[in-house]
Amino acid sequence: MSLYFSALMDTQPTEAVEILANRYGKARIRLMHVTRNGARHEVRELTVRVLCEGEFESSYSDADNSQVLPTDTMKNTVYVLAKKHGIGAIERFGRILGEHFLTNSQAASKVEVEIEEQPWSRIEVGGKPHGSAFLSAGAEHRTARVVTTRASCTVEAGLANLLVLKSSASSFEGFLQDEYTTLKNTSDRIMATSMKATWRYDASELAYDVVWAGVRRSILETFAEHVSKSVQHTLYDIGKVTLETFPQIAEIHIVMPNKHCLPVDFQRFGMSNDNDIFVPTDEPHGYIEARLGRTN
Amino acid sequence: MSLYFSALMDTQPTEAVEILANRYGKARIRLMHVTRNGARHEVRELTVRVLCEGEFESSYSDADNSQVLPTDTMKNTVYVLAKKHGIGAIERFGRILGEHFLTNSQAASKVEVEIEEQPWSRIEVGGKPHGSAFLSAGAEHRTARVVTTRASCTVEAGLANLLVLKSSASSFEGFLQDEYTTLKNTSDRIMATSMKATWRYDASELAYDVVWAGVRRSILETFAEHVSKSVQHTLYDIGKVTLETFPQIAEIHIVMPNKHCLPVDFQRFGMSNDNDIFVPTDEPHGYIEARLGRTN
Amino acid sequence: MSLYFSALMDTQPTEAVEILANRYGKARIRLMHVTRNGARHEVRELTVRVLCEGEFESSYSDADNSQVLPTDTMKNTVYVLAKKHGIGAIERFGRILGEHFLTNSQAASKVEVEIEEQPWSRIEVGGKPHGSAFLSAGAEHRTARVVTTRASCTVEAGLANLLVLKSSASSFEGFLQDEYTTLKNTSDRIMATSMKATWRYDASELAYDVVWAGVRRSILETFAEHVSKSVQHTLYDIGKVTLETFPQIAEIHIVMPNKHCLPVDFQRFGMSNDNDIFVPTDEPHGYIEARLGRTN
Amino acid sequence: MSLYFSALMDTQPTEAVEILANRYGKARIRLMHVTRNGARHEVRELTVRVLCEGEFESSYSDADNSQVLPTDTMKNTVYVLAKKHGIGAIERFGRILGEHFLTNSQAASKVEVEIEEQPWSRIEVGGKPHGSAFLSAGAEHRTARVVTTRASCTVEAGLANLLVLKSSASSFEGFLQDEYTTLKNTSDRIMATSMKATWRYDASELAYDVVWAGVRRSILETFAEHVSKSVQHTLYDIGKVTLETFPQIAEIHIVMPNKHCLPVDFQRFGMSNDNDIFVPTDEPHGYIEARLGRTN
Repeated sequence: MSLYFSALMDTQPTEAVEILANRYGKARIRLMHVTRNGARHEVRELTVRVLCEGEFESSYSDADNSQVLPTDTMKNTVYVLAKKHGIGAIERFGRILGEHFLTNSQAASKVEVEIEEQPWSRIEVGGKPHGSAFLSAGAEHRTARVVTTRASCTVEAGLANLLVLKSSASSFEGFLQDEYTTLKNTSDRIMATSMKATWRYDASELAYDVVWAGVRRSILETFAEHVSKSVQHTLYDIGKVTLETFPQIAEIHIVMPNKHCLPVDFQRFGMSNDNDIFVPTDEPHGYIEARLGRTN
Repeated sequence: MSLYFSALMDTQPTEAVEILANRYGKARIRLMHVTRNGARHEVRELTVRVLCEGEFESSYSDADNSQVLPTDTMKNTVYVLAKKHGIGAIERFGRILGEHFLTNSQAASKVEVEIEEQPWSRIEVGGKPHGSAFLSAGAEHRTARVVTTRASCTVEAGLANLLVLKSSASSFEGFLQDEYTTLKNTSDRIMATSMKATWRYDASELAYDVVWAGVRRSILETFAEHVSKSVQHTLYDIGKVTLETFPQIAEIHIVMPNKHCLPVDFQRFGMSNDNDIFVPTDEPHGYIEARLGRTN
Repeated sequence: MSLYFSALMDTQPTEAVEILANRYGKARIRLMHVTRNGARHEVRELTVRVLCEGEFESSYSDADNSQVLPTDTMKNTVYVLAKKHGIGAIERFGRILGEHFLTNSQAASKVEVEIEEQPWSRIEVGGKPHGSAFLSAGAEHRTARVVTTRASCTVEAGLANLLVLKSSASSFEGFLQDEYTTLKNTSDRIMATSMKATWRYDASELAYDVVWAGVRRSILETFAEHVSKSVQHTLYDIGKVTLETFPQIAEIHIVMPNKHCLPVDFQRFGMSNDNDIFVPTDEPHGYIEARLGRTN
Repeated sequence: MSLYFSALMDTQPTEAVEILANRYGKARIRLMHVTRNGARHEVRELTVRVLCEGEFESSYSDADNSQVLPTDTMKNTVYVLAKKHGIGAIERFGRILGEHFLTNSQAASKVEVEIEEQPWSRIEVGGKPHGSAFLSAGAEHRTARVVTTRASCTVEAGLANLLVLKSSASSFEGFLQDEYTTLKNTSDRIMATSMKATWRYDASELAYDVVWAGVRRSILETFAEHVSKSVQHTLYDIGKVTLETFPQIAEIHIVMPNKHCLPVDFQRFGMSNDNDIFVPTDEPHGYIEARLGRTN
């Protein structure tokens, strides 16, 4: 018998064990929704995760499943609610799911729904968007995270995998140096990042699609126009512009890995270094993140 | 000592070993090229693989490295030639690389260069494309494969990860059935695929960019408009249209995995099945491929 | 000019923005360390992430880099400290790194170091472990997370990607049912999971390697011997046995995705269902997690 | 209407299109097989791909599905045949599948079955292997490729993702140099590779498991003991030992990417370079492959 497992059989544990936190649910629920208005279809592709927290301790400690709604049911429910209510903005769909699971699971006190949307665009035929043929709009996706409790509902929107690059107006100079610093000051470098941003709304009800599109546009334009002295500097101004432009947003959290593009040294080959040829790298990468809010 | 390795020490091998084929080179050489015309920059991102074939047997059998140009040198060379000649069409850059390595490696008789281009688009600011800020144009990439020998040069162009979907005009009926067939005929299904297509040009010199853009457009439009009776059927018509439209193309090879979208069964929940909610799946997937050419 | 970015130029923002949290550092620093004791070598492969928190607001809001130790320096430092001090247990190496960065960055008040170790085993030759030839010991890795502040040091150890499966003694019955529940009670199923566990030590100094190996053994043995009534149930007993066996551990956090193996329905083919052939799936998957501690 | 697609409507194509090659089937069919001998279970996990070639042109050019066995049926069949015949050696299972599909599809003239086996080992409890609890045996997998025609059957066995490393007895010197060569000769380096090897058997019937285990052992021992002057050199000797030891093998094909471990330069920090700290890298990587056979 197991040396360790036999501990469970001991009649007198010297010390009791406590569940400090727990949650369970279903992840990677994938859904494709097609709406047909005659020849003009809409397609929406989502990946959903539902997690419930609450009075589930006995399912862990006593193998009491009586309060455990199966994660398979959660999956079924996502499909049924999509059919009943449509998708709409993913923030809205997240709220519908959260409310449903609180209703159908007495033990749950908090439901977290995370939704990623994989965007599709229309294929153009003869210069016109086709009604029912679609092309992936890329690896970037829109995200929502809705946390519903019996007393409140928190809605976060976001985007992930926003892969952007600027080839001008990016420097990094005047940094702290110690005995292991070999990096040189640079007044002109490439800045590339795969941005993830999430922002929390003040209200749970608003024009999600409109605001989301505005924030995305704001992030892209600020990134493009910013005269950057560091990734931190650019991240901050992106957050600042977003908060100043969208009063609906209470807080924004931005993660900007620095996907370094290393200049190739051509002097080894008797050629000049002209800051034109780089090696893009995935690892190691810088990691910069911050959460910005409003001063009271 | 190793039971097996000691075989090498045997003075009298009962049977001799022959090298039937061999090649070597460098893969995943990543390159970012920035061209600056004042405030308007161009960025190009490539991933290159160079493989050489030829009289390299002695490097294997006799550890004779005297004819082995290091793969590290191949990597350096990709950067140097990009600087010297620019990139241009990736087919052209592949030809430059192939010719160079044949020249610099006497033992090489054949050089295969494969290039993937990761496309970037411009970020729009105030509705206008920015000069030096870019957004990834998605997971789709353009490909080239150039095979250069001392006598000839073969140029293939292509695209990969072209993720497309059509929600109408796709059926699959009248197929062969045996005792393990459970699939039902369907007159209306989603067809989704991540297409890979490569085509070989008749001539090595042509307007690569123009033709490539035309072929991509042709593939997308044919996919969109086709009334599909199977993936095979659509694949064929895509190939046929391409060959009929572009006389420069001698052959086209298309791979279309069938990324099944499975309809959710709502009758289990007392609801109707309306062909509106699907589960997109990655595995298992259908796999359909064909190579099409011209009848002599 | 950007509609949004111009907001930054406004002289009188109506509302000020505040940095609520921030951190920065370097991720995916990869390191291979070889120790040579004559013909017997040791190899260790690590991937390190270093993140600093502290008085870095001005680098965001004022582009003041004077307190910013470059992430490139962090990378260099990981290599230098590995050379100076060796690796030892990764928990120990994490502490050395944490202390170093607090010393070399006045602005930092907290340093989080995460280390993953990719294990290597020895190739056996003639039944004996070779001195300098190694085989990957699999996708599972050992992890450490060390958080160092000017006042304290918290050490967490862990493992990730522990892919395990049991083909007996796993049931799931008596669960809550609602109108969308289609799952059947099952008294005999496959349970498969890719476990991630992390545990926090009471003390920062202890025999890390010995305890880690004991915890891993305990997790595996408990998983194997447990008569499971749910993933929750097994997770709990794994945590309980660990806490009861290892007094050095204050808390343990376990994540067990349920990688469903779906029985194939053979009745469709006139054959019996014998619970012998399954479809392993990656998505959707159950997600079960809990954090366990000691009752005071 | 599409500019391109309308080409299909032309009544008089100037040139006809021909299908030069085609095949179709199902990929990523995943299967877990459990055999229960009392308390001692065996688990086998496979991923299967089935591709058929033959007289399928009309399914492409005329949308005639009457000879097309659905790929969904292929998937079902893999499960049914696993149940009827068990798995046994994957080479054997591949032959059963190949023969079945030739029988059930009149149009097929050639069936290619590729099988990957993901290995599981037993969890040890109290030092003894458990009967029904398993631990993934790593990312390495065993492979088989069986090509069945109406006249013949070719069986290839193999392994993939064999991640190995040697920290001694590896040099690379005396190589060809040109104006872009910066690599230095090295008499002592790390050699790391993720090997893929496939070998073709002379006979279709043999003790697959025994031979496979012998070949794997031979590859590992030869890799370990070899005094390597290049990746090519080691690859060759691995192939040579295999062919000399296993007369059942007609040919072996080996791919050895060179996963470079780059020495860190410590002289920049006033420290000595002792060949002890390396940066393991995934890209770019060397790529070396060869196919070896027997001299007639």
